[in-house]
Amino acid sequence: MTQLKNDSLIRALLRQPTTRTPVWMMRQAGRYLPEYRALRASAGDFMSLCSNPQLACEVTLQPLERFDLDAAILFSDILTIPDAMGLGLYFAEGEGPKFRKPLRTAKDVEALPVIDTSRDLNYVTDAVALIRRELNGRVPLIGFAGSPWTLATYMIEGQSSRDFARSKSWLYQKPELLHLLLEKLALSTIDYLNAQITNGAQVVQIFDTWGGALSGPAYREFSLAYMQKIVAGLITERDGLEIPVILFTKGGGAWLEDIADTRCHALGLDWTVDIGEARRRVGHRVALQGNMDPAVLRAGRGAIEAEVERILTSFGAGNGHVFNLGHGITPDVDPANAGIFIDAVHRYSLRD
Amino acid sequence: MTQLKNDSLIRALLRQPTTRTPVWMMRQAGRYLPEYRALRASAGDFMSLCSNPQLACEVTLQPLERFDLDAAILFSDILTIPDAMGLGLYFAEGEGPKFRKPLRTAKDVEALPVIDTSRDLNYVTDAVALIRRELNGRVPLIGFAGSPWTLATYMIEGQSSRDFARSKSWLYQKPELLHLLLEKLALSTIDYLNAQITNGAQVVQIFDTWGGALSGPAYREFSLAYMQKIVAGLITERDGLEIPVILFTKGGGAWLEDIADTRCHALGLDWTVDIGEARRRVGHRVALQGNMDPAVLRAGRGAIEAEVERILTSFGAGNGHVFNLGHGITPDVDPANAGIFIDAVHRYSLRD
Repeated sequence: MTQLKNDSLIRALLRQPTTRTPVWMMRQAGRYLPEYRALRASAGDFMSLCSNPQLACEVTLQPLERFDLDAAILFSDILTIPDAMGLGLYFAEGEGPKFRKPLRTAKDVEALPVIDTSRDLNYVTDAVALIRRELNGRVPLIGFAGSPWTLATYMIEGQSSRDFARSKSWLYQKPELLHLLLEKLALSTIDYLNAQITNGAQVVQIFDTWGGALSGPAYREFSLAYMQKIVAGLITERDGLEIPVILFTKGGGAWLEDIADTRCHALGLDWTVDIGEARRRVGHRVALQGNMDPAVLRAGRGAIEAEVERILTSFGAGNGHVFNLGHGITPDVDPANAGIFIDAVHRYSLRD
Repeated sequence: MTQLKNDSLIRALLRQPTTRTPVWMMRQAGRYLPEYRALRASAGDFMSLCSNPQLACEVTLQPLERFDLDAAILFSDILTIPDAMGLGLYFAEGEGPKFRKPLRTAKDVEALPVIDTSRDLNYVTDAVALIRRELNGRVPLIGFAGSPWTLATYMIEGQSSRDFARSKSWLYQKPELLHLLLEKLALSTIDYLNAQITNGAQVVQIFDTWGGALSGPAYREFSLAYMQKIVAGLITERDGLEIPVILFTKGGGAWLEDIADTRCHALGLDWTVDIGEARRRVGHRVALQGNMDPAVLRAGRGAIEAEVERILTSFGAGNGHVFNLGHGITPDVDPANAGIFIDAVHRYSLRD
C-alpha cells in the first residue's frame, strides 16, 4: 500500500503529535458544492450516486479538489444496511429518506437477514477500494456506518421523526423485540465496517444521530451497548497500522465518559459541548473530534475565524484534537466559507 | 386570598419538606384530552381558546378534573408576546405556529414595541385572574412565558425551524441587532410575567425550548443572559408568599450550574439528564423539576411505573423535587396513562 502523505488525522486520533490540527467536515461531499449538484442532476437521485462506485468516488474526491482537507470520507448513506435488508430505501424530494417496507411486527424483525456485505453491499466496498486507489495516499479514507439505534429508528418509523413515537414505544413496550433488531443491526454493521476496512478504509466512524433522544439508562442499553459490541468486533489493524474508531452521538454530551469506556479511539462532539470541558472529563483516554456549530459557516470570515480560535483555545495545547463541525455542513453554505474555516483551523493551530 | 389547600408544589420549589413529591405535566391541558379536543372543535382554532378568558380557564382546569395534579398551568402560548408586538401569529393546521410578518430587517426590529401587558395582553391576565378565582386555592397556578431567544427564533424564522438558519445568521453576523431584539423581548416578558403574578400566578416558568441549539458561549450570551435579566426583574413575593421561578432550557444539561447562578428557584430538566447527577451538580442551590421522557406515556403501566421509580430513586431522599415530564405530553397519549403516571409519582414518593 502507498504510504500516507498526510497522516495527521490518524496521528491525532491516536493522540500523537501533529504539526497542525487536522480538519474535515461531516457531509463535506454534498449539496453545498455546485459540482456535486451538477453530478447529482445528471445521475438522477441520491441513491444512484451512492450505488455507483465511479460516481461515489468522484463525489468523495470533489471537496478535496477545493479544500486542504485532512481526510476523505466515503460518500454513502447510513441507511444502506436497512436497504440491503430489504426495506426499500428511497428519497422523497425535500422529505428525506423513507422506507417502502418499514418494520411493523415481530415477524418483520424475525424475518430480517443479517447482511453479508460481500454479497449485499459490494457497491459500497467497490467504492471504498476505488476511492482508496484514487486517493493514492494523499489523505486517509474514513469509512462509516450508522449506529444500530439510529438505523432502528428509521426502520421502525419508516422515515425521519421528531419524537420517535413508534421506536420509543418498542423500546418501552417490546424491549426484547428492539434488542433482536439491534443485535441483527450490530452484527451486520460489524461485517459492513470490517469489509470497508479490508477494502481500504483507514478510519471508521459510527454516526449515532439519534442516541441523544434517549434517557441515560435507555441510551446505555439500546444505543451504546451495541456500539460497544461493534467496536469490540472490528478489525483493529491493517497493513500494520491501527484503525481508529470514532463514535459520534449527537446530543450525547452527558455520557462522554460512558462512550469513552467502549475503548473507541475518539469521540465526536456536537457544538453544545465545551471541548475543553469534554477533554477534562475524558481527554486522557480518547481523542476528541469537533465541534463548531455548522451555522457559523453561514456567517462571514470574522465569525468563522473567531469560533475556530475559541474552540482551539478551549481544547488547549497537546495532542488528540481533530477539528470538525458538530454536525453536517448544510446545503446553503457558500463553499468559500468552508475554505475560510479549513484554512483558519490550519493557520491558528500551527505549532512552532 | 384563599389559603392554598395543596401547597406541595410551592414547598418543593422552595426546597421545603412535602409529604409526597408534587407532580404536574407540561401541556397537561391539551390535545391528548378528548374534552379539550371537543372544546377546541367548537371554539374554532387554538388562538380562539387562548384569547377567550372563559375558555382558557375551562381548558386549564380540565386535567385537574381527571387527575390528582399538584398544579394548574395557564393555558396559553409562548408566542402571545410576538403576536402582541404585531407579527400576526397564526396556526397552520398540522404545521405549528407561523407569523404573517416575520422579522427581516433592522428596521423591523427597531420598529418593534415593548409590550404593555395591561393594554396589549389583557386577555391573558384576565384568564389568570379567572383561573385563580376558579381554583379557589385547590392547587397553585403557574404562569409562564417563552425565553427571549426562543421567541426570537420564531420571530426571525417566521415559524418552527430545525436548524435556525436565519436566527443563527443574525447571531453570528448581526449580534447587535439580535441583542436589540432580545432586550425588547426581555423587557416585555418582565412586564408580562409581573402582570401574571399581580393577577394571581403563584409560580412562573420560562420555557427556553431552543436554548439547547446553541453552543455554550452563544447560550450564555444570547439566551441565559436575558433569562437572568427577567429573573432579576420579577416581583419576588405576593401576599407575603415567595413567587418561585423555574427556568427550563430543553437540551441545556451542560449548563445547569450557569442556569442555577441566575438565582432562579428551580431548573426544569429534560430526560437526557440524570436527575441524581444534576442534583449533585446544583441541588444545594435550586430545586429540580422533571424529568421523564414523555414517550414513556405511550407504553403501558409497567414501563411508566418503572421509570417513575427510577427517577425518584435517582433524585434520592430530601427536598426539592417537582416531578414532571422532560417535555410536553404528546397528543397521542392515552389519558389513562397520564393518570397512571401521576398516581405512581404520588404513591412511590409517599414519605412515612
